[in-house]
Amino acid sequence: MADKFISERNLRFLLYEVFDAPKITQYPYYAEHSRESFDMALDTAMKIGKNLMKPKLTEMDKNPPEFVNGKVKVHPMVRGLMKECGEGGWIGAPFSFDLGGQQLPLMISGACRFILSAANYSASVYPFLTTGAAHLILSFGSPEMVETYVPKMFAGEWQGTMALTEPQAGSSLADIATSAEPTDQGFYKLRGQKIFISAGDHDGVDNVIHLMLAKIKGAPAGVKGISLFVVPQKRLENGQLVFNDVNTAGIYHKLGYRGAPITQLSMGENDDCRAYLVGEPHKGLLYMLQMMNEARIDVGLGAAAIASAAYYASLEYAQQRPQGRKVTSKDPTQPQIPIIEHADIKRMLLFQRAVVEGSLSLIMQCALYADLGRVLTGEEQQKYELLLDLLTPVAKSYPSEMGLLSVSAGLQILGGYGYCDEFPLEQFYRDARIHPIHEGTTGIQGITLLGRNVTMKNGAAFKLFHAEVQETLKKAEEIAELNPFARELKAAMDGLTQVTLHLIGLARSKGPEVFLADSSLYLEFFGIISIAWQWLLQAIHVQKSLRQNPAGSDADFYQGKMYAFRYFFHYELPKMEGLAKRLTDGDAFTVEMRAAHFAD
Amino acid sequence: MADKFISERNLRFLLYEVFDAPKITQYPYYAEHSRESFDMALDTAMKIGKNLMKPKLTEMDKNPPEFVNGKVKVHPMVRGLMKECGEGGWIGAPFSFDLGGQQLPLMISGACRFILSAANYSASVYPFLTTGAAHLILSFGSPEMVETYVPKMFAGEWQGTMALTEPQAGSSLADIATSAEPTDQGFYKLRGQKIFISAGDHDGVDNVIHLMLAKIKGAPAGVKGISLFVVPQKRLENGQLVFNDVNTAGIYHKLGYRGAPITQLSMGENDDCRAYLVGEPHKGLLYMLQMMNEARIDVGLGAAAIASAAYYASLEYAQQRPQGRKVTSKDPTQPQIPIIEHADIKRMLLFQRAVVEGSLSLIMQCALYADLGRVLTGEEQQKYELLLDLLTPVAKSYPSEMGLLSVSAGLQILGGYGYCDEFPLEQFYRDARIHPIHEGTTGIQGITLLGRNVTMKNGAAFKLFHAEVQETLKKAEEIAELNPFARELKAAMDGLTQVTLHLIGLARSKGPEVFLADSSLYLEFFGIISIAWQWLLQAIHVQKSLRQNPAGSDADFYQGKMYAFRYFFHYELPKMEGLAKRLTDGDAFTVEMRAAHFAD
Repeated sequence: MADKFISERNLRFLLYEVFDAPKITQYPYYAEHSRESFDMALDTAMKIGKNLMKPKLTEMDKNPPEFVNGKVKVHPMVRGLMKECGEGGWIGAPFSFDLGGQQLPLMISGACRFILSAANYSASVYPFLTTGAAHLILSFGSPEMVETYVPKMFAGEWQGTMALTEPQAGSSLADIATSAEPTDQGFYKLRGQKIFISAGDHDGVDNVIHLMLAKIKGAPAGVKGISLFVVPQKRLENGQLVFNDVNTAGIYHKLGYRGAPITQLSMGENDDCRAYLVGEPHKGLLYMLQMMNEARIDVGLGAAAIASAAYYASLEYAQQRPQGRKVTSKDPTQPQIPIIEHADIKRMLLFQRAVVEGSLSLIMQCALYADLGRVLTGEEQQKYELLLDLLTPVAKSYPSEMGLLSVSAGLQILGGYGYCDEFPLEQFYRDARIHPIHEGTTGIQGITLLGRNVTMKNGAAFKLFHAEVQETLKKAEEIAELNPFARELKAAMDGLTQVTLHLIGLARSKGPEVFLADSSLYLEFFGIISIAWQWLLQAIHVQKSLRQNPAGSDADFYQGKMYAFRYFFHYELPKMEGLAKRLTDGDAFTVEMRAAHFAD
Repeated sequence: MADKFISERNLRFLLYEVFDAPKITQYPYYAEHSRESFDMALDTAMKIGKNLMKPKLTEMDKNPPEFVNGKVKVHPMVRGLMKECGEGGWIGAPFSFDLGGQQLPLMISGACRFILSAANYSASVYPFLTTGAAHLILSFGSPEMVETYVPKMFAGEWQGTMALTEPQAGSSLADIATSAEPTDQGFYKLRGQKIFISAGDHDGVDNVIHLMLAKIKGAPAGVKGISLFVVPQKRLENGQLVFNDVNTAGIYHKLGYRGAPITQLSMGENDDCRAYLVGEPHKGLLYMLQMMNEARIDVGLGAAAIASAAYYASLEYAQQRPQGRKVTSKDPTQPQIPIIEHADIKRMLLFQRAVVEGSLSLIMQCALYADLGRVLTGEEQQKYELLLDLLTPVAKSYPSEMGLLSVSAGLQILGGYGYCDEFPLEQFYRDARIHPIHEGTTGIQGITLLGRNVTMKNGAAFKLFHAEVQETLKKAEEIAELNPFARELKAAMDGLTQVTLHLIGLARSKGPEVFLADSSLYLEFFGIISIAWQWLLQAIHVQKSLRQNPAGSDADFYQGKMYAFRYFFHYELPKMEGLAKRLTDGDAFTVEMRAAHFAD
C-alpha cells in the first residue's frame, strides 16, 4: 500500500510561505510559540500518523466495531491512540495554557489534525470529537463541570461526543423530543433517544461524556426551547463511576468510515439518567452552533485529508504502472510507458491535487481568521469573525463534495484495480461519502450561506470577502505571469456579485422559497470562486519563490503548483458559467412542481 | 426496502410513444412480432425481476462469491436464474429463429435487459454475458462450433465470458501475451493468464465457455497479431466433459457488483489447454470489437438501470419521510412535511430522473438504430450503423458517469440513512462505480469518440448525427411550448460543431496528443448534447399526448416528464458552457507537464 498520505512540503508551503503562521506569535497570546514549536508539533503528528494510525487503516475498515451484549467493541488500537493523544496533549492542543491546553494557533493544530485525518480518518475522530465536546464545557460550563470532565477528556481517558440527532427530527433540530425534567438536586432527569452519535459508546475509553441537546419540560416549542446538557454515560458518585442509564441500543452498518462506531442511544430507560445543564436554559442551540461551526470546518478538513491520501495512492500507482504508449508512437515492439505520461491521467491527477491543495488552503485561511479573531479586538476582531462565519459552509462543503469526485478520479486512475480492495482507493471512496452528510448536509450549508451569512449585517461579511479577493487580485496583477488569471478571477468575482444581487432581488420579489431553491448551486458557485482565490494566492507565493531561486531544488514542486493552479483556472473555474446561467434564468420550477408529478 | 425499481409507464412511453417500436414489425424479419408479443416479453421480464432477482439483491451483496479449493461458489439463486433464463429463451432472445433465438428487436430485448439489470445488476450479468459470447460464436465460429456450444449456452447450462484483460496489458490490448501454439489436431495449445474475467468460473453452471484473445506463435506484434479462440473450461471428449486446464487462480474482493465473481484465470498450467480458433487468424480484435460495442451499450444500460433502482428508492423515502417545514412557515407547532416538498430535494430527484430517463432514451435510440441497421440495406443500413457506431461511447459513458452522480444524489436525499445498509442506496452507490471502468474506461471511450468516430469517413457519422438533431429541432419548433428549448439546443449543437472543428484544427496544427488530451471532456460535452436531444424528443411526444388528452389519468406522468425535461435544460445543458470554454482555450498544459512536476 502507498505510504505517503500527505505532502509535508505542501503543508509547510501553506503555513510558512502563504500564510506566514509564525507571524501570529507577535501577539502575546501566541508569544510562547515559534516556528520551532510549530515544526515540532507537525513532526510529532507525522510520527503518530505514520507509525500508529496509517498501519491500521485497512484493518479497522475490515473489522468494524461490534455490538456485543449492549456494548460497543472497537479496534484495540483506539485505546492506545486515545492514550497517546492524551499524553501528547493533542486533545487539548488548541486551548489556552490555563485550561490545560497548548495554546497552539488553529493553523498549526489544524495542520496536525489534517495529518492524522489523512493517516486514518476513522481513528482521528475519537480524539477530535473529545476536543469539540471539551470546548463546549470550557466555553459554557460551570467551573465544577470543567473540573469534573475536562482533565479526563484531555487525558484521553473519557470520550466526548456531540449528541443532536433524533429519529423523528434529523436535520430539523426544532423537532427534537428528548426531555429533561428538573429535580431539586441540581440535575435534570433525561428521557429520549439519539441516533447517529459518533463514538457514542466504545471500549477504548472508560467513560463517554455526551454534550446533548434536550428540551426542559415546559420549554417553548421549536429551536427556542432547546437546552444543552452534559450527559455522562457513567456518573461519578463518591469517587466511583456509576452507570447513568445511558443505554446503547445499537450501531449502524455503514458504507465507510467503519473504524468509528455510530451509535443509537436511549436515555432514561430506568428513569435514572442524570443530565447537567450547561449554561442557561433554552440557549442550547446557540452554544451548539459555535461548536458546529468548528465541527463543520473540521469536516472539510477531514474530507481534504481523505482526498489527500487518495491522491498520493493514485499518484504512486500512476508512476509505477506501465500501460500503453504515446498516441504519437504506437509501435508495439517498444516498451509501454507509465500511465502518468498520458495526458488524461495527468488531468485526473491535477484534478485531485487542485482539490486537495485548494481545499487545504481555504481551510488554513479560515484557521488564520480564527486565530486573528482570538488575538484582535473590536472592529478587527469582528472582521475576522465575520469572514470565518461566511466561509464556514464553503470550507465544509467544497472539500466534501469535490473530495468525493477527486477520490473517484483517483479510483478511476487505477482502473479495475481501483475497484478492488488490494488498493486503498475503494475504501477512500466509501469513507469520503460521509462528509457531505454529517454536521449538516450540503443542502443545509447552502441555505446557511445564502439565507443567513451572505445577507447578515446588511451584507457586511460578503463585502469583507469581496475586499479580501480584491487584495489578492491587486497583488496578482503586479506579476506578469498571473495577469490573465487575475482577470479571470476578477470577472468570476463580478459574476458572483451579480448572481448574489439577482438572488437577493428574487427574495424581495418572489419570497424566500424561490430565493433559496438553488442555494446548493449558489454554494457550489461560491466554493469555486473561493478555491480559485486560494489558488491565485498560492500562485503569488510560488512566483515569488521561483523568482528568488528559479533553479532551486524546489523548482519541480513550484512548477507542479503552477500546473495545479492552471488546472483549476482552466478546468474548474469555467464551471461557474453554467451555474451563473442557471442561477439567473428565473424559472423556479422546483418550487412550483408538486409531489404528484413524480407519479409513475 | 423499496419495491419499485423501474417505471413500466416510462418504458412503454419510450417504446410505444417515442420510438414506436411496433413499427419495426413492418419489416419481414420482425413480422412475426407485434405489440402483444412485445408486451408479453416485458411482462415476463418484470415477473422474473420482481419475483426472482430483486428479492436476492441484498443477500447476494452480503454473501459474495467465495473461492474454495480452487473453485468459485456463488449464490444458489444463480443456477435457478440461468435455468429460468434458458427455459424462457432470454439468453438467445435477440437472435434469429433459425439460430434458436426469438428474433426480438433490440429495443425490446434491451428493455427486458433494463428491467432485469435494475432488479439485480450482478445477477443479470450471468445470462447476458452468455448472450454476448454466444453472439461471437454465431457470427464468426464454424457450424460445428455453433452446434457444440450455442445450444448449451442458450439453455443456461453453460456460462459464456469475454476474456481480454491481462495483468501486464490492461486497456492496452496490443500487449497481451497469452499464446496459442498450433497442433495438427485442429486445436491450439494455450498458455497464459487473464484477469478481471466476469463470471469466469462458478458453480451455477456446468461449464464455462471463454471467448478469449490470444496470440498465435509467430504472429505480428501488437493488435494485428491478436486472434480469437473458444476456450472451454471443460472440453467434450467422447460425450464427456473433461477438464481443459483452465484454472481459476482467484477472485477479486470488490467495492460492489458483489453478486458476480470476477476471476483470475491461468491457462495451460499442465500444458493441456485446448483452444479453438474462431474465424481467421489475427482477426480477433476485429471480431471482438463488434461484441465490445454491444457490450458497451449494455454497460450504459446497466448503469441507467442501477440509477433507476436508486431513483425509486430515494423517491419512496422522500415521499414518506417527514422533516422540517417550508421556509415560508417555520411554526414549530405545525407538523413536519415530507421532504419531497423541499425544493432542494425535488431538484435532486429531478436530477436522478433526468439522468435515468434521458440515458434510457438514448439507449433505446441506439437500439432502434441497430434494429434498422439489421433490416435495411445499402446506404440506409450504413446510415444507421454509422450513427450507432458514433453514439456507442456516449451511450456507454454518459449513463456510467452521470449514473454515479445521480445515485450519489439519491443517497444524499436519505441523509445519514443513505450511508447505512438499512437502505439500498449505499449498495447502489458501490455497484454503480464499476461502469466507468469495465468494457473500456471513460478515457478510452473519449479517445474512441474523438479520435476515431467523429472523424471517420470524413466526418460522415457526425454529419448524420447533426441531421438527426436538426430533425428533432424542426419538430420542436412547431410546438410553441418547446420553442425556447429548441433554441437552446440549437445553440448548444452549434457549440458542439464549433468545438469539434476547433479540435480537428488542433489535430492538424499541434498533432494527435494535443488533439486528444481533453477527449474525456469532449465526450462529456457530446453526452450532454445527446441527452438534451433525447429529452427534447421526449418532450415533443409529451406535448402531443397532453394536447390530445390534457386531463387524462396520465396527466401527472406527462407533467412530471416536462419537469424532468426542464430540469435537464436548466441545470444540465448549461454545463456545456464551461466545457466549451476549456475545450477551446488552447492551453495544452496537460501534454506539456512532466511527471517530475508531481514531485512532493
